[in-house]
Amino acid sequence: MKIVFHGQNACSFVQGFAGLLSQNHEIIELPDTLTTEEDRRAYEAADVIVGVRLAAGMPVPVTLKLYQLPGAGYDGIDLGLVPEGAALCNCFGHEAAIAEYVMASLLLRHVPLADADKRLRQGDWSYRSGGADALRTELGEQTIGLIGFGHIGKTIAARARVFGMKVIVANRSAPEDTSVFEQHYFLSDLDSFAGEADVIVNTLPFTPQTAGLVDANVIAAMKPEAILVNVGRGPVIDEKALYEALSQKRIGGAIIDTWYVYPDGTNPAPHPSVYPFHELDNIVMTPHMSGWTHGTVNRRRQAMADNINRLVSNQPLESVVKREEHGP
Amino acid sequence: MKIVFHGQNACSFVQGFAGLLSQNHEIIELPDTLTTEEDRRAYEAADVIVGVRLAAGMPVPVTLKLYQLPGAGYDGIDLGLVPEGAALCNCFGHEAAIAEYVMASLLLRHVPLADADKRLRQGDWSYRSGGADALRTELGEQTIGLIGFGHIGKTIAARARVFGMKVIVANRSAPEDTSVFEQHYFLSDLDSFAGEADVIVNTLPFTPQTAGLVDANVIAAMKPEAILVNVGRGPVIDEKALYEALSQKRIGGAIIDTWYVYPDGTNPAPHPSVYPFHELDNIVMTPHMSGWTHGTVNRRRQAMADNINRLVSNQPLESVVKREEHGP
Repeated sequence: MKIVFHGQNACSFVQGFAGLLSQNHEIIELPDTLTTEEDRRAYEAADVIVGVRLAAGMPVPVTLKLYQLPGAGYDGIDLGLVPEGAALCNCFGHEAAIAEYVMASLLLRHVPLADADKRLRQGDWSYRSGGADALRTELGEQTIGLIGFGHIGKTIAARARVFGMKVIVANRSAPEDTSVFEQHYFLSDLDSFAGEADVIVNTLPFTPQTAGLVDANVIAAMKPEAILVNVGRGPVIDEKALYEALSQKRIGGAIIDTWYVYPDGTNPAPHPSVYPFHELDNIVMTPHMSGWTHGTVNRRRQAMADNINRLVSNQPLESVVKREEHGP
Repeated sequence: MKIVFHGQNACSFVQGFAGLLSQNHEIIELPDTLTTEEDRRAYEAADVIVGVRLAAGMPVPVTLKLYQLPGAGYDGIDLGLVPEGAALCNCFGHEAAIAEYVMASLLLRHVPLADADKRLRQGDWSYRSGGADALRTELGEQTIGLIGFGHIGKTIAARARVFGMKVIVANRSAPEDTSVFEQHYFLSDLDSFAGEADVIVNTLPFTPQTAGLVDANVIAAMKPEAILVNVGRGPVIDEKALYEALSQKRIGGAIIDTWYVYPDGTNPAPHPSVYPFHELDNIVMTPHMSGWTHGTVNRRRQAMADNINRLVSNQPLESVVKREEHGP
């Protein structure tokens, strides 16, 4: 088969990929923008495409059997353009990495490592045990509210609980295993949910149903000291409502990894929002990096190779987002 | 009874203490240095002292029944000076706080939050998912080696495991519950232990048996990228060997919270070692702060009040370090 890795993100997974396949296949790496005739022909002839973007105006891979995303989000895929006879699959393997990002950023709000280090280097022992002014807070005494309870939500929940945090969950359907959290809310009850949490973490993807789900009303229901974290997709949190809550100091702060504006061909270095979040001091801003580790790449590479091996041996594919009837 | 809180550290626990006692007692707060005749007499008349320092030249509380430490370490106590008829007790309650410090400082080595934030504010998306150069490592893929497996060691182990870390333990006696770690070493095998870990955390107190336990040989056995963490007591790690390993970049780095030199009456702002650790860029230096949280104070206040209530009602005391025969 011809396996096309389309774009920089997908090409990150090529090294070592062939060794995980049960048969020899032709592996082709293509750039994000398909400009040459040769690149376009190679794309059109693919049996499998690994990529993150399928849009109008791109070549049509008419014999495609599998469009494999090298991650979970498929907001770059125009579902109507997945060729007949092809399955669209995603993969995960990022949840441990994202949980490390979330727990690191939350713990850091309680443990002032950088300031303590800077001071002690100058002989300043202000943070020393025993001083009433030096007492810090504990993350473990707080309540974490998870919006979404899929791979990411469950992985964060396990880590939060071992630190002693109370875990509450808001999602579409009540989870079967209720032993891993203290209370469940439906997405229609986000206002009540928001009032109970010291930390709210959005893990939901961007869909028509999640767009703007965390709106001005939900943010207004948050405790004044509570923190809002986004490791799902940016627009699940209303952009203007988030900016106003932060700039007016109506919540304790935010840790935002997923955004509203991303680099593209016209601007490789944009600010990540039309609002000047970069002027605020109560937000940690990171560039959609939370899941991006060697471990994630290794786990996803394996998951994608496994799916291609299943395709070759006519086994059912895993993590199917959309399946078109396979042709004869 | 007369309950004396001696010194700044002990006095941190006074607020709210009376409300936890089963009877009314006289609560007296005294400064670290007992200079006035009144202070010395109050100290001498104590039935219970809460404090961290008992040394030659101090007044002798001849009718003392309980010397209660407001923490775990009793290296400030001259055991020979605990009056006959008195018990010396310590308390814990700091393990969750210390584990937050340890996990925060370890996670931060893998998640470059501050640099990513600084860059994105300038439109620099270097850390964005998809770029091969942006891939970070995961703490969860590493092995953590715990020296000591008491309250602190077990609490760190639980958190490390849920992140996926392999946990190995070195201590005096093989722990009964072997389900919480992968491998056990005796303290005589620290060299072998040291070679297996990516992170080594000392949790041991300072005693004649632990002084210099982590010596030049143990540090030489560490992996070149491994990190040494000290949340036990400074001198358990040989001061010169640690400085030389760091300054010669023979280990990956260190996170040191407990030290060799502390502030005292002659110098309130010393460097924490005779070696210039403060000139090194591969160490995080903090001023003995890891366990110092509101949660720790609340838990210890309760534990100390419980012990005084036990004393009053002739119940066995908890966390007895040294017990002299109670008088008739």
